[in-house]
Amino acid sequence: MGRYLILAGLCAAFAGPALAQNNTAALAARQWRQNHERAIIDEFFSLLSIPNIARDKTDIQRNADVIKGMLEKRGIPSKLVSVPGSNPVVFGEIKTPGATRTIVFYAHYDGQPLDPKEWSTPPFQPLLRSGKVEDKAPVIPLPEPGTSFDPEWRIYARSSGDDKAPIIAILTAIDAIRAAGLQMKSSIKFAFEGEEEAGSPNFAKILAANKDLFSGDVWLNCDGPIHQTRRQLLVFGARGISTVDITVYGARIELHSGHYGNWAPNPAMLLAKLLASMKDDGGRVLIDHFYDGIEPLSEIEKMAIAETPVVDEELMREFWLGATENAPKHLAELIMMPSLNIRGMSSSRTGLQASNVIPASATATIDMRLVKGMDPTQTANRLIDHIRKQGYFVVESEPDESVRGSHPKVALIVRHQGERAYRTSMDISVSQEVIRTVESARGPTVKMPSSGATSPDAAGEVLGIPNIGVPIANHDDNQHSYNENLRVQNLWDGIELMAALLTI
Amino acid sequence: MGRYLILAGLCAAFAGPALAQNNTAALAARQWRQNHERAIIDEFFSLLSIPNIARDKTDIQRNADVIKGMLEKRGIPSKLVSVPGSNPVVFGEIKTPGATRTIVFYAHYDGQPLDPKEWSTPPFQPLLRSGKVEDKAPVIPLPEPGTSFDPEWRIYARSSGDDKAPIIAILTAIDAIRAAGLQMKSSIKFAFEGEEEAGSPNFAKILAANKDLFSGDVWLNCDGPIHQTRRQLLVFGARGISTVDITVYGARIELHSGHYGNWAPNPAMLLAKLLASMKDDGGRVLIDHFYDGIEPLSEIEKMAIAETPVVDEELMREFWLGATENAPKHLAELIMMPSLNIRGMSSSRTGLQASNVIPASATATIDMRLVKGMDPTQTANRLIDHIRKQGYFVVESEPDESVRGSHPKVALIVRHQGERAYRTSMDISVSQEVIRTVESARGPTVKMPSSGATSPDAAGEVLGIPNIGVPIANHDDNQHSYNENLRVQNLWDGIELMAALLTI
Repeated sequence: MGRYLILAGLCAAFAGPALAQNNTAALAARQWRQNHERAIIDEFFSLLSIPNIARDKTDIQRNADVIKGMLEKRGIPSKLVSVPGSNPVVFGEIKTPGATRTIVFYAHYDGQPLDPKEWSTPPFQPLLRSGKVEDKAPVIPLPEPGTSFDPEWRIYARSSGDDKAPIIAILTAIDAIRAAGLQMKSSIKFAFEGEEEAGSPNFAKILAANKDLFSGDVWLNCDGPIHQTRRQLLVFGARGISTVDITVYGARIELHSGHYGNWAPNPAMLLAKLLASMKDDGGRVLIDHFYDGIEPLSEIEKMAIAETPVVDEELMREFWLGATENAPKHLAELIMMPSLNIRGMSSSRTGLQASNVIPASATATIDMRLVKGMDPTQTANRLIDHIRKQGYFVVESEPDESVRGSHPKVALIVRHQGERAYRTSMDISVSQEVIRTVESARGPTVKMPSSGATSPDAAGEVLGIPNIGVPIANHDDNQHSYNENLRVQNLWDGIELMAALLTI
Repeated sequence: MGRYLILAGLCAAFAGPALAQNNTAALAARQWRQNHERAIIDEFFSLLSIPNIARDKTDIQRNADVIKGMLEKRGIPSKLVSVPGSNPVVFGEIKTPGATRTIVFYAHYDGQPLDPKEWSTPPFQPLLRSGKVEDKAPVIPLPEPGTSFDPEWRIYARSSGDDKAPIIAILTAIDAIRAAGLQMKSSIKFAFEGEEEAGSPNFAKILAANKDLFSGDVWLNCDGPIHQTRRQLLVFGARGISTVDITVYGARIELHSGHYGNWAPNPAMLLAKLLASMKDDGGRVLIDHFYDGIEPLSEIEKMAIAETPVVDEELMREFWLGATENAPKHLAELIMMPSLNIRGMSSSRTGLQASNVIPASATATIDMRLVKGMDPTQTANRLIDHIRKQGYFVVESEPDESVRGSHPKVALIVRHQGERAYRTSMDISVSQEVIRTVESARGPTVKMPSSGATSPDAAGEVLGIPNIGVPIANHDDNQHSYNENLRVQNLWDGIELMAALLTI
């Protein structure tokens, strides 16, 4: 899941009612945690101190071995599962006698690539601060065993939020459940991936090669941050994506804007007109058939969106925005719709680097976020049809002299790999049971029928398992960025959440 | 003057009638040159071997001293004229007894900055090739004194074309005139500038501080290339310019295009729509009052344009263009009109460098080329009015949180220094005399009422002198680029041209 941003003031504005707490396992987890805070953090720090960038194979292997050891220390049979060239998935399994269903917990132990120079402290030397580094909170020593952590303290390290926290939360929850003598009712599997931040290039292959091993009745994706209001979030799907680069052409070289200005076509202007033709001023996409075939939201999904706290005004303040696209619709409903976004635009140089030229070409990269019912290739084709309707001769490899010289307007399209949207139905019994369980442990939730972002649904596509996101990190964890952190209370809440889910 | 480009085939296509040759001084210059080719080239090579980038003060001083020495060797009183911080202008003067007018010859001895790595041979080691480096013509030794140079050979070095060639041509022409015993009728002044390629930051100041020294009856600007057809070019003016950077804003940071796509305004799309609103599909500028107040072309100017060889089709082939803006009007007439050009456009990153973001801002740099009757500041103001009409709140310094948060659309405008257009009338007697003289030496000419490019008319603005461009370099001299060169015949023709002009 992609990064959320620091939203000062949101949490205060949305302090909800006191959390309901009528889940036995969650309460047991709280008690266990209160008596073992320092030990839990010590185990977490050891895991965080192992560098975990997906391309560093030796480090990755160490992480996998350590996590396998953490499972086995708890008597959970574990193994590393790979396909050629992949980083290992750490698999673990608790077989519960008499269980009629299996819950698969997914997390990933690799972290986003980073530049240590950007970090206030080294990313693989986990440490505690008394608050947020942005607020100049100082580094503080770990409290002595037996004393409490302040819940607003924060743990700084790469993957503290994304995504080693759920691994610690799950293992701690297991300790707590056992110490309290509680019984599990379901069989449990763990799938901890080692290259999610590299785009999961092998995960679907690993699942496909080991279908029985990873099969189950529900797939709980313990990745990402919770809602900006600090309410527990449940995510039932993700938008898909279709990405293309569009390049349009002027002369084969940059021309002097004095000698040829008014005469030589300007590709930056051509691109501006082409892009401008794709959306109306209100934000609606003008590509023919763009919205065709969209699967409508169900009643329960519409209700979930209607119940989502509206944070638009706070977000606008935070982002210095004087307006939003598609207003007055809210963010929560808008990300349930497909979008067309310009990721970037380039043509020659600007500002002090600009020359007195007519550029030779102009490029834009566009991503279109898709909802259920839309196909990535078909959507790209519809965009290309739109470009043709604007008078362009469209090519998919670099056009040569004869192509460019014989057409008034030529556009080069480069397609990037697409991804379909998915939405696990919120109506099915397992979804309803997950919702009830989570709310019994964590109080009122925010339920997103789909994230606005994209993530491949390997569980659904390869294994046919319903996939539900149960994140635990704070929304302001700086994931994917420098100074990644986890708020201590989010780890405590996560342990209780996992205890409840482990005992469904 | 800016660069022209290599136009293969144009010269053959436009081989005009045999040149008229009825100018006594030009014929004397030819004879002198034929007997001194190696000596002329040797003097040229010594001058080209002195590096001449404007910021390298020591090199510049060496150039100035050497040129002063070349004048004094010919008995021409010379001095270096500066203002604090400027590079020196080499001034020289031939006082002709009884002369009733003074002709000022302008050239510049500094060259465009360069990257030696881009050059096939070192830029300050002048050498001869048997043709164009692009055609793989080899380096050849200088022929022995007394033997002839092939006119299609080329001299490679920085400033061979732009703009040391006229200095050699003028000095050689003086030698020839004197050897032939011809009398000058006018007094002659020389103004050889040392920082033209740095934007002439001090030239107007130097003239203003030395008005009497530089005053005269006509200012002959010996800079730039001749016409692509190889006909002699006469240039009577230049377009002006008004340049602005436009930046429009989205959120204060790049946002995830999944989590916020459809909701957060996309500044690349805003900029695309804004730019698209500035011109119609035919190329006409849609800014209100943009074309107001333009001084129309005179009959003689219109005639000059009508007589200009039409090279559009050859240019289109050369540039791989399948269409031109403002067709079916020709290049020659279009550069007599004002233009609006996007120099460059940037927003976040594109292609493989693109991220899945909504950009935080988008910037375009725009130049508007002006014709007589247009004011640079007023034209920028009209553009800004247009931007306001598109719903923007326009600021001229970086907008802060409160400005951005309280306006739906905010545009930052950065104005760059403007320049007015000028056109020396082709009707006045001195223009007519220059035209007659040049045509007597060089045959049919191409007469441009104005260059499409911009160059400050310091002579006109500070001294009130009519300013006429009499270039000599080949159009394909790679000026401002690597592998700058001069075709040998262009130097020979230039010597004859200067001989004719020196004896007006």
